[in-house]
Amino acid sequence: MKLDFQYELDHIGIAVETLDKGFEFYRALGFEDMETEEVPSEKVKTGFLRLGNRATLELLEPTGEDSTIRKFLTKRGPGIHHICLRVKGIDQILEQLKSKGVRLINETAKQGAHNCRVAFIHPASTGGVLIELSEKEKNG
Amino acid sequence: MKLDFQYELDHIGIAVETLDKGFEFYRALGFEDMETEEVPSEKVKTGFLRLGNRATLELLEPTGEDSTIRKFLTKRGPGIHHICLRVKGIDQILEQLKSKGVRLINETAKQGAHNCRVAFIHPASTGGVLIELSEKEKNG
Repeated sequence: MKLDFQYELDHIGIAVETLDKGFEFYRALGFEDMETEEVPSEKVKTGFLRLGNRATLELLEPTGEDSTIRKFLTKRGPGIHHICLRVKGIDQILEQLKSKGVRLINETAKQGAHNCRVAFIHPASTGGVLIELSEKEKNG
Repeated sequence: MKLDFQYELDHIGIAVETLDKGFEFYRALGFEDMETEEVPSEKVKTGFLRLGNRATLELLEPTGEDSTIRKFLTKRGPGIHHICLRVKGIDQILEQLKSKGVRLINETAKQGAHNCRVAFIHPASTGGVLIELSEKEKNG
């Protein structure tokens, strides 16, 4: 059965020690006036590099010692932390994945930033990639 | 100076032990009829998962013991190997990066697959991410 769900690449999350250091390379590429945003619930400061095809590189700087990103940096050093796919029908997709034995970090979608509902899938089930699914809420 | 170059997310390259194993999760998501292609020069077989916004996930299976992807798998296990940005004006961009002291793996663009000219940038200069730049040749 061919599904009607559509997937787009929303963003790539990249762990950095500081946004300022992380921006260096992208400034050399010609990026300017990057937006930043603090997300206290996730203990990160995010810096956005918007690409042409509605995809974004999100640099993630930890703002607390118990931040997930701090733990990642300590263990692996700076680099890609996760990728996020924009989806349609997140609840059905999560049910479908569960029924196929895929290991979910979030069994149901939780509230994310920017009026989105999100869920993370465990790298053990995806071939070593931490994947976030995200769906924009219709009314907001 | 604001540059006129545009950047788009072209693909994310993901190292897998075998395409068949790598496809498992994406089949659970609903992907079907994935294209594959063997690239003898890079000693990989590639499997393509095309997303809605002209971005692709490229699964990379090594086809030789001396393949870069085999070495990556031995050292790090399956996971994201590189990201590729589609650019305009690759020669000028490489000159610009060089003048700013960015460490390039390819100092000049080389011929890639699909009538593209490509160059890799060293992760030491980008914050731990292996980045490929790619530009479609105008005549081909």
